[in-house]
Amino acid sequence: MSVSTQEGSLQTASKEYPGGHRWVWRFEDGSADMRALLGGKGAGVAEMTRAGLPVPPGFTITTEACNAFYAGGEHFPDGMWEQVRTALSELEQKTGKGFGNPKNPLLVSVRSGAKFSMPGMMDTVLNLGLNELTVEGLAELTGDRRFALDSYRRFIQLFAKIVLFVDGAEFEDAIEQEKHNTGAASDADLAPDALERLIARYMEIVSAKGNAPFPQDPLEQLAAAIGAVFSSWNNKRAVDYRNYNHIPHDLGTAVNVQAMVFGNMGSDSGTGVAFTRDPATGEKKLFGEYLLNAQGEDVVAGIRTPQPIALLEKELPEVYQQFADIAARLEAHYRDVQDMEFTIERGKLYMLQTRSGKRTAQAAVVIAVDMANSGLITKEEAVLAVEPEQVDQLLHRRIDPAAKVDIMATGLAASPGAAYGKAVFDADRAEAQAAAGEKVILVRVETNPDDVHGMIAAQGVLTARGGRTSHAAVVARGMGKPCVAGAESVHVDLEGRRFEAGGRVIREGEEFTIDGSTGHVIAGQVPMIEPEMGAELETLLSWADGIKGLSVWANGDYPRDAELALRFGARGIGLCRTEHMFMEQDRLPVVQRMILAESEGERRKELAQLLPFQRADFLGILSAMDGLPVVIRLIDPPLHEFLPSLEELLTEVATARAKGVPEQDYADRTEMLAAVRRLHEQNPMLGLRGCRLGLMFPEIVEMQVQAIFEAAAELKKKGKDPRPEVMIPLVGHVEEFRRSRSIVEKVATGILEKAGVEVEYKIGTMIELPRAALTAAEIAKEAEFFSFGTNDLTQTTFGYSRDDAEGKFLLRYVSEGILPDNPFETLDQEGVGQLMRLAVEGGRQARPGITLGICGEHGGDPRSIAFCEQLGLTYVSCSPYRVPVARLAAAQARLKHVERDR
Amino acid sequence: MSVSTQEGSLQTASKEYPGGHRWVWRFEDGSADMRALLGGKGAGVAEMTRAGLPVPPGFTITTEACNAFYAGGEHFPDGMWEQVRTALSELEQKTGKGFGNPKNPLLVSVRSGAKFSMPGMMDTVLNLGLNELTVEGLAELTGDRRFALDSYRRFIQLFAKIVLFVDGAEFEDAIEQEKHNTGAASDADLAPDALERLIARYMEIVSAKGNAPFPQDPLEQLAAAIGAVFSSWNNKRAVDYRNYNHIPHDLGTAVNVQAMVFGNMGSDSGTGVAFTRDPATGEKKLFGEYLLNAQGEDVVAGIRTPQPIALLEKELPEVYQQFADIAARLEAHYRDVQDMEFTIERGKLYMLQTRSGKRTAQAAVVIAVDMANSGLITKEEAVLAVEPEQVDQLLHRRIDPAAKVDIMATGLAASPGAAYGKAVFDADRAEAQAAAGEKVILVRVETNPDDVHGMIAAQGVLTARGGRTSHAAVVARGMGKPCVAGAESVHVDLEGRRFEAGGRVIREGEEFTIDGSTGHVIAGQVPMIEPEMGAELETLLSWADGIKGLSVWANGDYPRDAELALRFGARGIGLCRTEHMFMEQDRLPVVQRMILAESEGERRKELAQLLPFQRADFLGILSAMDGLPVVIRLIDPPLHEFLPSLEELLTEVATARAKGVPEQDYADRTEMLAAVRRLHEQNPMLGLRGCRLGLMFPEIVEMQVQAIFEAAAELKKKGKDPRPEVMIPLVGHVEEFRRSRSIVEKVATGILEKAGVEVEYKIGTMIELPRAALTAAEIAKEAEFFSFGTNDLTQTTFGYSRDDAEGKFLLRYVSEGILPDNPFETLDQEGVGQLMRLAVEGGRQARPGITLGICGEHGGDPRSIAFCEQLGLTYVSCSPYRVPVARLAAAQARLKHVERDR
Repeated sequence: MSVSTQEGSLQTASKEYPGGHRWVWRFEDGSADMRALLGGKGAGVAEMTRAGLPVPPGFTITTEACNAFYAGGEHFPDGMWEQVRTALSELEQKTGKGFGNPKNPLLVSVRSGAKFSMPGMMDTVLNLGLNELTVEGLAELTGDRRFALDSYRRFIQLFAKIVLFVDGAEFEDAIEQEKHNTGAASDADLAPDALERLIARYMEIVSAKGNAPFPQDPLEQLAAAIGAVFSSWNNKRAVDYRNYNHIPHDLGTAVNVQAMVFGNMGSDSGTGVAFTRDPATGEKKLFGEYLLNAQGEDVVAGIRTPQPIALLEKELPEVYQQFADIAARLEAHYRDVQDMEFTIERGKLYMLQTRSGKRTAQAAVVIAVDMANSGLITKEEAVLAVEPEQVDQLLHRRIDPAAKVDIMATGLAASPGAAYGKAVFDADRAEAQAAAGEKVILVRVETNPDDVHGMIAAQGVLTARGGRTSHAAVVARGMGKPCVAGAESVHVDLEGRRFEAGGRVIREGEEFTIDGSTGHVIAGQVPMIEPEMGAELETLLSWADGIKGLSVWANGDYPRDAELALRFGARGIGLCRTEHMFMEQDRLPVVQRMILAESEGERRKELAQLLPFQRADFLGILSAMDGLPVVIRLIDPPLHEFLPSLEELLTEVATARAKGVPEQDYADRTEMLAAVRRLHEQNPMLGLRGCRLGLMFPEIVEMQVQAIFEAAAELKKKGKDPRPEVMIPLVGHVEEFRRSRSIVEKVATGILEKAGVEVEYKIGTMIELPRAALTAAEIAKEAEFFSFGTNDLTQTTFGYSRDDAEGKFLLRYVSEGILPDNPFETLDQEGVGQLMRLAVEGGRQARPGITLGICGEHGGDPRSIAFCEQLGLTYVSCSPYRVPVARLAAAQARLKHVERDR
Repeated sequence: MSVSTQEGSLQTASKEYPGGHRWVWRFEDGSADMRALLGGKGAGVAEMTRAGLPVPPGFTITTEACNAFYAGGEHFPDGMWEQVRTALSELEQKTGKGFGNPKNPLLVSVRSGAKFSMPGMMDTVLNLGLNELTVEGLAELTGDRRFALDSYRRFIQLFAKIVLFVDGAEFEDAIEQEKHNTGAASDADLAPDALERLIARYMEIVSAKGNAPFPQDPLEQLAAAIGAVFSSWNNKRAVDYRNYNHIPHDLGTAVNVQAMVFGNMGSDSGTGVAFTRDPATGEKKLFGEYLLNAQGEDVVAGIRTPQPIALLEKELPEVYQQFADIAARLEAHYRDVQDMEFTIERGKLYMLQTRSGKRTAQAAVVIAVDMANSGLITKEEAVLAVEPEQVDQLLHRRIDPAAKVDIMATGLAASPGAAYGKAVFDADRAEAQAAAGEKVILVRVETNPDDVHGMIAAQGVLTARGGRTSHAAVVARGMGKPCVAGAESVHVDLEGRRFEAGGRVIREGEEFTIDGSTGHVIAGQVPMIEPEMGAELETLLSWADGIKGLSVWANGDYPRDAELALRFGARGIGLCRTEHMFMEQDRLPVVQRMILAESEGERRKELAQLLPFQRADFLGILSAMDGLPVVIRLIDPPLHEFLPSLEELLTEVATARAKGVPEQDYADRTEMLAAVRRLHEQNPMLGLRGCRLGLMFPEIVEMQVQAIFEAAAELKKKGKDPRPEVMIPLVGHVEEFRRSRSIVEKVATGILEKAGVEVEYKIGTMIELPRAALTAAEIAKEAEFFSFGTNDLTQTTFGYSRDDAEGKFLLRYVSEGILPDNPFETLDQEGVGQLMRLAVEGGRQARPGITLGICGEHGGDPRSIAFCEQLGLTYVSCSPYRVPVARLAAAQARLKHVERDR
């Protein structure tokens, strides 16, 4: 981490400083771009000072001094102390006070401030400069002995704790004792004599427990405090924090020494915090609160209720006006909402700190658009000013952040948004109750295709087992319904129609809440905020569209998904999973008969029954996406996913057998069990699925392709412009693709010729196996497009089964730092990304201009989208609800990519 | 495919030929290295002719002529026919006969001959040159009218079928009819008049069915036959064959025209075939058979029994001596055993063909060693002369190739070798019966750890389910016991103690045979050949050791494996699977209690019980491998593999519940079921296993490492030289390795310090996940060795679960040509190999000189070994029984690699 050129040139000119190197910068000499040298806080006050704002004067000791301190065996570097003394003299001149002067003592605060805000380091020592003598001077000067003594007490306590390592509890005990003895209700009620006794007691504690005596000399106090700040850079908490956040250890911390100002010097004094705009709504008005005759600590202590900032206009109109002007200047200067701290000392306003203000999702969008519209920032800056995840928040119903919630359990955040309703434990009942107008939440151990109608009827879904790619999670995300999956501490008693979690029981019909964005299972009903895609968001996203390089498509299986995707701004369907259509309740029995068929002939008979369903589905989705590409993936999952579970069948059959039920009475179950067993696989994810299935049972693929092209032909005849793109899944060897393609081409050609129409279509493949990525150049000779299936590619590259891994070790891997991220949420650029890069290179080499997309869940993850931008993909495809997120993320990725390339 | 330089220079000199290009080569002008131009057969007779052997004279029309024929729209190229005519004239001069001369007709054979021997093309037309006139001349000349007429009849039949596309069945019908009419018992019994009628009938058939009239002009016959040979190059069977075998279509075929000689011209004529050495034993003596007064066809027809070649010495001593001399010359010339065809025409010996003789495994070894010892070939040539798979045959008991076997079913060839014994259906009974001295074969649907004692007792194992990496297959291979796995057509009825296959039933106690090298399940007992590692094989392998670059190590889990490996010449243990030790019957209950333990404390208690077992195991294997490396892999499989099967438990519990058994009576089963469910994974291969397990339960790894180093320390104190190398499995991210290594190092250091000894050891990793290969440079910074786990790497790179894939689609993929090979048998160089190459490069870059090995099953596959040689690995490791194969393959790989590099 090196300082900027500007700083460097200043350094070169520093021979005039004692020690030959400049270690100390007055606030008025620094600026905002000197964060590396002066730390964030030092650069901030320097910038305010330079802007002419009323900042209590002071100076910053550089991060370089900190590093030199360590390099020199924990001694101040040559010349540093002399430079501090010089700066202190200047401070005395500016304030007209004297450091250690009993008549008019200069008091200072000492604060650490590294380049990055960092908890765990020494924070602040206030009132430094007080001692037995100066405290009396302060009393006299302010005419407030109680104030002076209390300031001294606070200083001793902070200094002892932070610099001398005395346990704070002893001071608290002493103060409680004194309050008890004198009958004082609060700290503020302690009379001067009580405070004098307390100070004496504090000094005893410091003598007994401190690792050094309490220094009466203010210069000694200052040197010790500076040393303590330096030392805190390497305390355990700070080192751990840096390790965890990958912050280098050689940045060092700066130390800020600043003249104290006091908000507790009467009714013309005060302290407060304020935002330049409402951080909740984005409304353009000062927002904040203040307390007169108080210090910052008092606001925190909550003894008195702070007043809304607007009231200040009545109480101290001049100060208010000055503050409002400053706020406006700061916002214009930093070109962002500011979160400011101020103190008023006897009618004079001092700005203590300003920084970018945190804001809600809604506020972020409103503010960014307003600032760009008013010309304060560019549209590009507005696009960069909103976090993509904030857009996501706006698109789902969410729990009011102000609400108190009673969390019973936490599962996986499987599908975002919050929902409440009455617990029901089976799909049929969910459907019936929803039909009767009830809001219900479906609770299952895990779901399977038989539950889908219940999921449709329910507000949300809770399962006790399964990961973020479990049936419940995938289906719920597709529906845009909240889902908490794999909540292992939820014990579901299906027979008893109740579940237990966190020691409490929810019976069928009792209301509860789930939050699919956090994984929380919450007792009772909590207040919600409804989703909204307001005008400002539309505006912001239209700007994003004008910037981004990547096109954003959506994954969707039904016409309703396509409509939603279009509404959210998708420019194509990147993944239409044909098998989800198989899972619908009215089709599943046919699908099961098809699977159980013992000959190709029988199978074809059942497939013929499925054909009209599939054709209608494709008709709907191709019609909705008129003129836009629809990538239709041929059947992918292993066939046993369409059958009942092995465990249930085994139990049923064993029970019937043990009870002596006549065999013919459960023959259908026995037969189904045999079929499930025959299709059973050790590792179904790596078994007979994808194009393997299509090559073993070409008749299934033939039916699907027939449905696609009959639908397309029908639309074409009606004057529409269907754009089907047939995607062959799970290709690992080019020959698999070649043979699959020839099945598709043969059927498609036949149908189009028969219909006498021409339809533009493509045939391409998923790249979702390492081998496909490695041999992409071969495959691209045959395939017209690639779509990266990064869910499966991540599974095979890491050798993780997502369903198994997340619960069993992956989340621990992430929390323990073995992996930096969950690779199923954020693309692993080092491993999976390397394969993608190979595939992109291979694909382009064999077929320049090949269409390249991504349809794994990473297609909706901003960091992954940034990587796709770098790879130069054509599009990202994600769930409809993530489309706005992806549009924004894609624009940001482009802006940052272009930036990097400069 | 271009011709050699020598051929090129001859071409340049060919302006003298009609058409300006030489299309025709006399036998005496060609040589063995002109295969591309003259085809294999043409080059062979040319070489014999050139060597001065008595070959019937003739000439070859080149493969170039064939290509020119196609280029010219299926017309002979300019000058070709003229050159044929010239060559024919020379042939007339040499033989003193005239083509079409009724007095002394020259007859020729016309044969195709491509560069590679290729079924599906036109084969041979004999006796060409006969017609109504010359047949009479032949009759007169030979004084054998029957012979002449029969020759004509044969010629018409062959010519009509091959050149004129007349269905052969009609001729067969006609000949049957004639035999019936005249009461002839065989073709040879047909009298001249019958033959005349037959010839007339043949001509009628040709007129009616032929696509052209039968030509009486011998020159027309010849031109038509040459054209037919050319055309047959592109018939469907030939094209399919070339496609399947990846032979280019532009090689073309040559045509050989050769003067006929007749072995059926009396008792001083004859025909025969012979080898220069016994192809079964390798013994150095002429081996073969002959028939006097016969043609080759007669030998095939089996009307008379041929005589052993030795008898010829008595019947025709001069001819025999001449033949023996020629045989010796040919063997010396070709420096290999020759398989020769000869004909004797009226006391004159003619050599028709010679080629390398096929031989048994045993003969191959004996011959190679003898030839090298006698100086005929070099040791390197001897090493190249034996197929590695032939060595494998020698190391397993095998079914006598001469035996007739009755195959009931075919499963997977899961562990090589043949075995017979009485069928038993459970492990306990297998153990009991074996203890009583019976030979038994264990038959199970599939095996699990509870069956291991039965497998130890049995001669071999048959399972109906599971692939080549199923429990049965892996354990059997480890034991070197024959195993047929996944024989899906074998229906096992455990309750009825019988199995059914191919319509037959084998009951418990009935004998049957399995062949683990072919997957055959055979009724009854069949004769076997015992394995042998004879002196010649030892010699050959010692030569191989002197040549090879790769070191050969063995995979082995027990001291007995180590001893076997050493006996077979292994120089280290490349994979010691610690968990197999967990599977032993006396340890499994402790392992299960350890898995079920609910706290780390409980788990440690059970682990403490396992410690002495593991220590004893390691003591044994390290002691056996004194001074050689032993790579010990830490625990790898998912824990549920050590528990009973979910299906069985579910059935047991459901049955008990349905029968109303008191709950406490099966509480242990319920508890076990709960545990199995808790540990259950959707895709266990990609779940909690390998180093993930060790990171979640470090106490297991700590126990294993303690056992390893306590064993090593004990041996060291006894003056031995233990060389443990600890291998961390399933690493995907360097951080997994780093943390695992630190657990290992901490325990190892502690134990060695306590024991006060130093032990040389290494810590390295498997590269068995794509991500590990992709990030190998990172991992190599931490790991001292890589061992490619190509089984898992193949699974993840292809996305195949081997167990599921082989039965469900993979074998069909291979048989249908979608994949060129089963990638679990022969390394997929294009995909998996690319990852290996990346890993080798990354590993060497980060740690030059890093030890690189392979311990997947490919380590014993010759083609995969050749790839490892190219990659420059340090060693290959395979099962002990494959070590000799690997030694030979490694030497061959080096010889070919060096050759290629020249």
